[in-house]
Amino acid sequence: MNLKPSELAMVPFVSVANMMKLIHHVGIEKMLTEIAHEIEEDFKRWELFDKTPRIPSHSDVGVIELMPTSDGELYGFKYVNGHPKNAAAGLQTVTGFGLLADVRTGYPVLVSEMTVLTALRTAAMSAVATKHLAQKSARTMAMIGNGAQSEFQILALKAVCGIDTARLYDIDPSATEKCAANLKGLGIKIIKCQSPEEVIEGADIITTATADKNYQTILTDNLVGAGVHINAIGGDCPGKTELHRDVVARASVFVEYPPQTRIEGEIQQMDADHPVTELWQVIAGRIEGRKSASEVTLFDGVGFAIEDFSALRYVQRAIKGTALYRELDMIADPDDPRDLFGMVLRAG
Amino acid sequence: MNLKPSELAMVPFVSVANMMKLIHHVGIEKMLTEIAHEIEEDFKRWELFDKTPRIPSHSDVGVIELMPTSDGELYGFKYVNGHPKNAAAGLQTVTGFGLLADVRTGYPVLVSEMTVLTALRTAAMSAVATKHLAQKSARTMAMIGNGAQSEFQILALKAVCGIDTARLYDIDPSATEKCAANLKGLGIKIIKCQSPEEVIEGADIITTATADKNYQTILTDNLVGAGVHINAIGGDCPGKTELHRDVVARASVFVEYPPQTRIEGEIQQMDADHPVTELWQVIAGRIEGRKSASEVTLFDGVGFAIEDFSALRYVQRAIKGTALYRELDMIADPDDPRDLFGMVLRAG
Repeated sequence: MNLKPSELAMVPFVSVANMMKLIHHVGIEKMLTEIAHEIEEDFKRWELFDKTPRIPSHSDVGVIELMPTSDGELYGFKYVNGHPKNAAAGLQTVTGFGLLADVRTGYPVLVSEMTVLTALRTAAMSAVATKHLAQKSARTMAMIGNGAQSEFQILALKAVCGIDTARLYDIDPSATEKCAANLKGLGIKIIKCQSPEEVIEGADIITTATADKNYQTILTDNLVGAGVHINAIGGDCPGKTELHRDVVARASVFVEYPPQTRIEGEIQQMDADHPVTELWQVIAGRIEGRKSASEVTLFDGVGFAIEDFSALRYVQRAIKGTALYRELDMIADPDDPRDLFGMVLRAG
Repeated sequence: MNLKPSELAMVPFVSVANMMKLIHHVGIEKMLTEIAHEIEEDFKRWELFDKTPRIPSHSDVGVIELMPTSDGELYGFKYVNGHPKNAAAGLQTVTGFGLLADVRTGYPVLVSEMTVLTALRTAAMSAVATKHLAQKSARTMAMIGNGAQSEFQILALKAVCGIDTARLYDIDPSATEKCAANLKGLGIKIIKCQSPEEVIEGADIITTATADKNYQTILTDNLVGAGVHINAIGGDCPGKTELHRDVVARASVFVEYPPQTRIEGEIQQMDADHPVTELWQVIAGRIEGRKSASEVTLFDGVGFAIEDFSALRYVQRAIKGTALYRELDMIADPDDPRDLFGMVLRAG
């Protein structure tokens, strides 16, 4: 009797080590560009996705969330936590893993780490927003918050939008040093700055990625010049914002999924009917994005399930023909599906 | 430089093969009894759990669901599908896997298959309901629907409630043959029956576990005698019921979580305010269960997240000191949590 799991019972699993190998196998800028392309393609067909705000479980130290979606053929979800105090304990603030399943059978077809992959997809998402909203001539970005996301954000904007200069600022100078050291030799001019005022000098694009869980005003209105595009990606839960409300009030605001962004994004500071444009409508060519060279555009990014879905589907394809995954025996697959008990019995 | 994943980054994973070994290591009746005990303990502290109806993604062939909960210390969720037509294609109707995480850090602490484990926890749940609702003298059960769940249901009622005789019926006689063969030598008197009328003769407990996704009336009112306890566990989604509404109307109905059961359970046939008792209140000693020897009690079981949580926590403890799991490199754990990019860079 064959008691080895059948092929049907096996689910490919991409570990953290293999995800890192995949990044080097593909090349990080190419992978960021390709994930950005996947996100764009999925945003174009936004309407056919099953959409729901993420499902949170809050505690006094953080949040654990599930982010499911489906395009009718594949179902995907991400498990992700957000624990701002983890960093002080030497742990990641955000970790995650994700799954894809076949809608026709309900069988999982991929399980993957998503701590590293989320950094890539978040950066790719900022790049997609920037590509569609920033001025085409933009070459200099300011990166405020030089933590775990910062290098990915900068490289994605280099790869997708042609940024050649990154100005760095963090309240902790050692974070800026770390970011600058990591980006050395990667083809970007790095300028280390000492203040929010200094970092945005001459920047066409401002990306904020700070992590503290309370209302902050990293950017005040007098700092933001005409024509700038802002990616505000650090504020992604209730009570966590990065921009002064005057900045939000002056900008044209673009969001992923309004029911989620109104709770979690910068616009949680504004009235419940504050006007926003859904970014997918810009990508699909239905609504104009930037309307003038002097307009301030704001991508109020909180991260949406479809972006994780795009990234997971990319990984599912990218690992084919490689040894960068292993099979997990995760699904019971008895010879007779009604005979689960017999399968258990015979394993004895 | 140490590029091997740290211990923090590793998550114990229990495969299907290891879950089956665990069952044999512990003993199936002991494991059913212990999971039933875990469920009872968690139902006693029901109020402190974070509760939400499961989050479904429906398609025309089935449903994929996420079932999260938390007791404030551990967070758990189950991924589970329900695809009634899978069986005809040689696939499982229901497969699943689950996760436990530490609420303080958001880090996963267990990943486990849950196709086999769900069968155990569903059976343990029926046993808990039966223990608290059936007549203490009950020794004979009728099992209607002799598919993948049936043997587990019968063994759990033997182990927890002292059942010594199981009467079997299925519209497919080969399912009954399979169930009877699997239970041979396990200390239960088995009686194979040819009709619903025959199977319930002399039964003190009736358990229905049929899978088709439409309104069925496997049990009509004239069949159900006074004093019987019914576990209706097959109807667990909108449009899927097993009992004639007259049976439900006559019985005292006990449920897990009313907001979910009113959508998915037998009581979806009844008015939205049809009286029900939450089973946890009976287990906690706050409300009387069975009030007389002639009362018909009905456990309208649909499966709730807390039961999966109880089962996963049991597994987490049970695998300690065994070799019945392996470590998955599922969480990125850079030396400096802000330096995710550096970790990726150095892996090259």
